[in-house]
Amino acid sequence: MKLSARNQLKGKIVAVVKGQTTAHVRIDLGNGMVVTSSITNEAVDDLQLAPGDEAIAIVKASDVMIAK
Amino acid sequence: MKLSARNQLKGKIVAVVKGQTTAHVRIDLGNGMVVTSSITNEAVDDLQLAPGDEAIAIVKASDVMIAK
Amino acid sequence: MKLSARNQLKGKIVAVVKGQTTAHVRIDLGNGMVVTSSITNEAVDDLQLAPGDEAIAIVKASDVMIAK
Amino acid sequence: MKLSARNQLKGKIVAVVKGQTTAHVRIDLGNGMVVTSSITNEAVDDLQLAPGDEAIAIVKASDVMIAK
Amino acid sequence: MKLSARNQLKGKIVAVVKGQTTAHVRIDLGNGMVVTSSITNEAVDDLQLAPGDEAIAIVKASDVMIAK
Amino acid sequence: MKLSARNQLKGKIVAVVKGQTTAHVRIDLGNGMVVTSSITNEAVDDLQLAPGDEAIAIVKASDVMIAK
Repeated sequence: MKLSARNQLKGKIVAVVKGQTTAHVRIDLGNGMVVTSSITNEAVDDLQLAPGDEAIAIVKASDVMIAK
Repeated sequence: MKLSARNQLKGKIVAVVKGQTTAHVRIDLGNGMVVTSSITNEAVDDLQLAPGDEAIAIVKASDVMIAK
Repeated sequence: MKLSARNQLKGKIVAVVKGQTTAHVRIDLGNGMVVTSSITNEAVDDLQLAPGDEAIAIVKASDVMIAK
Repeated sequence: MKLSARNQLKGKIVAVVKGQTTAHVRIDLGNGMVVTSSITNEAVDDLQLAPGDEAIAIVKASDVMIAK
Repeated sequence: MKLSARNQLKGKIVAVVKGQTTAHVRIDLGNGMVVTSSITNEAVDDLQLAPGDEAIAIVKASDVMIAK
Repeated sequence: MKLSARNQLKGKIVAVVKGQTTAHVRIDLGNGMVVTSSITNEAVDDLQLAPGDEAIAIVKASDVMIAK
């Protein structure tokens, strides 16, 4: 299965923090870069996300802003 | 000025492609990772974005999906 | 590969319209429902999207608004 | 009032789950398709959303990703 | 019809610029504030958007970033 | 530092409400307009956001929907 999203960044999960409905998952991409994702608790359970897992951070090009 | 967005990834612009209203800008983050951003042509002109510039790719945590 | 996005709607591509940088793809979900997606031309070429293809429309829960 | 969003999918609310600030609302579109929306608790109260209500799931075309 | 989006800002359309697939619409909110929206050309035609029209800029709370 | 986001609306923070992972921040833009932002608790702490602070609500053009 291929995705249209242009940004697919591979890394390793380093933290999973669940709230009542929303969870924050941090993925270490290497090179000092760590990405934070905000997803539903349901998604965390469905994908059984846990620290140490290989995972991919996926972002649509239209959701990337630029600063200079 | 600090931003609430949790994802601020520094890199170098490697491509700027303008359409009639929307432009695609690619930022090399190093470590083999290149991010694509879709922004308005106006923003490209306003920030005078060009290949070789240092720039930051900014993404809200709620816009990051995960695959495993 | 599993995705964290809670909305994964299967259907058939019925139209692909390319602009200079951005393309619009329409997916018929059946039951009279057709979804429109706005993605990069690059993604259309990468996934070789064409009318008649089976495809999945993917939407993060945080991108779904409700009207009543 | 008409909306610019290209995706307006009618259905019936089947679940409303509130967290401390964010709620998840599931809308049955029929044909086996159920959509999950993540909105503020305030919006749930403002629109008095409850299971059994007719409601419309609204998504901008730029927020729809495609998998093939 | 009520919307879950927490941000509904009333104003007057001051510009509509169409690309090949994507249009930019600017709405003057008064008080020196002008908002830019990027929507499909189809939406512009469907809502018959033109300078001088009263319109509402609608944004989900999860799409608002903060700088300080 | 300049941002590509076309919408940068200055105002004053009038409320900060934290959930377990997600916070809601309201910014008074003047002229009777108040914007709600949904960000991570971490961002609230990082930027030390509190009522009375001057702040900027930032929105990408692609995240602005229009109603007429």
